[in-house]
Amino acid sequence: MIESTSPFVSTVRIDGAPRGPLAGLTFAAKDLFDVAGHPTGSGNPDWARQNAVPTRHAWAVQRLLDAGATLIGKTITDEVSLGILGENPFDGTPLNPLAPQHVPGGSSSGSASAVAQQLCDTALGTDTGGSVRVPASFCGLYGIRPTHGRLDVTGMMPQAPSSDTTGWFARDADTFARVSEVLLGEPIPRELPSSLIIAVDAFGFADADTRAALQPMVRRLSTLVKDVREDVMAPPGLSVWARAQRTLQPWEAWLTFKEWVERDNPRLQWSVARGLALAAMISENERQWAEQMRIEARARLTWLLVPSTILCLPSTPFPAPRKGLPLSTLTPLRARITTMEAHGGLTGVPQVSIPGALVDGLPVGLSVIGGHGTDATLVAVARAMAARR
Amino acid sequence: MIESTSPFVSTVRIDGAPRGPLAGLTFAAKDLFDVAGHPTGSGNPDWARQNAVPTRHAWAVQRLLDAGATLIGKTITDEVSLGILGENPFDGTPLNPLAPQHVPGGSSSGSASAVAQQLCDTALGTDTGGSVRVPASFCGLYGIRPTHGRLDVTGMMPQAPSSDTTGWFARDADTFARVSEVLLGEPIPRELPSSLIIAVDAFGFADADTRAALQPMVRRLSTLVKDVREDVMAPPGLSVWARAQRTLQPWEAWLTFKEWVERDNPRLQWSVARGLALAAMISENERQWAEQMRIEARARLTWLLVPSTILCLPSTPFPAPRKGLPLSTLTPLRARITTMEAHGGLTGVPQVSIPGALVDGLPVGLSVIGGHGTDATLVAVARAMAARR
Repeated sequence: MIESTSPFVSTVRIDGAPRGPLAGLTFAAKDLFDVAGHPTGSGNPDWARQNAVPTRHAWAVQRLLDAGATLIGKTITDEVSLGILGENPFDGTPLNPLAPQHVPGGSSSGSASAVAQQLCDTALGTDTGGSVRVPASFCGLYGIRPTHGRLDVTGMMPQAPSSDTTGWFARDADTFARVSEVLLGEPIPRELPSSLIIAVDAFGFADADTRAALQPMVRRLSTLVKDVREDVMAPPGLSVWARAQRTLQPWEAWLTFKEWVERDNPRLQWSVARGLALAAMISENERQWAEQMRIEARARLTWLLVPSTILCLPSTPFPAPRKGLPLSTLTPLRARITTMEAHGGLTGVPQVSIPGALVDGLPVGLSVIGGHGTDATLVAVARAMAARR
Repeated sequence: MIESTSPFVSTVRIDGAPRGPLAGLTFAAKDLFDVAGHPTGSGNPDWARQNAVPTRHAWAVQRLLDAGATLIGKTITDEVSLGILGENPFDGTPLNPLAPQHVPGGSSSGSASAVAQQLCDTALGTDTGGSVRVPASFCGLYGIRPTHGRLDVTGMMPQAPSSDTTGWFARDADTFARVSEVLLGEPIPRELPSSLIIAVDAFGFADADTRAALQPMVRRLSTLVKDVREDVMAPPGLSVWARAQRTLQPWEAWLTFKEWVERDNPRLQWSVARGLALAAMISENERQWAEQMRIEARARLTWLLVPSTILCLPSTPFPAPRKGLPLSTLTPLRARITTMEAHGGLTGVPQVSIPGALVDGLPVGLSVIGGHGTDATLVAVARAMAARR
């Protein structure tokens, strides 16, 4: 493990528009987003080399600049977004300031670290299988995975297009709401949902101390709505949904990176290379099953998340693991984390992670999800939770 | 592809004993051999870091020092010896001075390059699946893969122990014979074998222009013996022997490197990582078949290579490919090269590659193999071929 002294891979500065709703704010962008005139590094030295320097900003970068925010740097990412812990063997492990001996979470590790360290007000990340939700939970930040397909992903490096989303982080609920208004292109409503579902399967899947630590937040959230009930989010099992997502996402990632690795034979971390090598062997039969399960999972969440209904679950099954653990120890932890995140990439629903709980002093977040397109309502819930503290 | 300016990873100098049969000669050692006080790098930055600096020289290094040769450096190797072309993504591609636009061959790439560039008189390599024979052929050098188990491999990093051997290179037959006497611990005889078998299957497997380019050498070799006949080396097919070797060798390599990759999650070239990931999935059933084929292959060569009989074959099926080719182009070339080398690791017979042919100006070697333990006789044949030029 390499300790990184900075969450940034480069400190490019581009001033935002002089007036705008985000004037005065600073932001960073994960090094998967194009910034004109600067290479998009993607956390791997052999990726940047073979790709042209972009001539246009990514849509999300341009959107924040146009709204007045100032770009101050590009941030460390797990290699080509394939990682969930934030330990990059080339660029290092960005600091998790609230848990300095622990990983920041990934793959949007540097963006979460920069915001948590107060080096900028907000930062762009990507979330395919948990890459914003996990570092938000581990670093004690607000973080959003928007509805799949809602934001324009032009200029954002793809991984698995049917699951890829652009997300962002903030330390406080007001900044989170301001940035969300700009990127969602919609005001954050005053009205809150009326019904809350507590996902008993997801809470059951978390560690007992994490479940206990989140209870005060669940109670506070319950006071914001009229009806509260417990239900199962994934009737076939979170593990079955995760199996489907771990079939679809790696296969799409293989299609994304196949040409590159077969042409350039790049250096990759063993776990990343192994994942791609095994992904290449996923059978048509498995993929067909996973596609059917995706349809069923989407139908389940559409049925549960009727208008004015949200569901809450732990953002991660436990807080950040320690840095520098052997891969053999990390592998089962990664599997549990990605199981807790699988519904996002599988069904495309929006999710906001809200900070506020500690397990042995380590941050862990409570998440809310809603039906497709309810992103602004989830941000409103996060803001209301902060006001109710 | 990174061009390397030097075949050395470090230029450690240790003077040899003042008097001895190799006094006045200089040598280099592939960075898989321990040199006391210096890290054994093995061509991967994450390997050196996790291994203690050795306190003793490897047996072969000590043997050459004791005989009067002076160590002048440690040389580039393909990552942890897993490569046949000599393109290391971390340390670069050593120069093949007789074919500057082409690879040197690997994994003993730096050792072959250093000798070919006249930076030293001889150099130690390792040969598990062709790692001395291939660079000897590509760089126009003498090279030996000794009988498996003949040399003490203490202090040499293992890959697949049932196939690993210590080999060496030289530019001229006299130096090759002097070094071979020391490392084999046996004088090089004056007497030559009486019978030569021309391996028609191996010549048929080579490219037509390589086959044609080797004919003058085969004719010269034929004049050194009493009887010459054509025969098939591998009745089930070189490809079937190679399948067995490509089952046994990667499986053993996986057992060698499993603990490391699963603990440290190192950076590896995609092709190396992919090879290990697939090796981990080789079935017991496949391995059992391969073990049976190994017994049959050994029996075949024991039956063919009766005393005073040698067999000749192309050292490689073609000369060195160009540097920097895409992996998709290299993969079938690698497969053909390793098929031509598979009998070595599979059966353990000794093999000497003799330089002397050119294909479009590129070196390619003719090899001789003999029964187990006939190493010195093969060196004698190489010397006699040089005298007959």
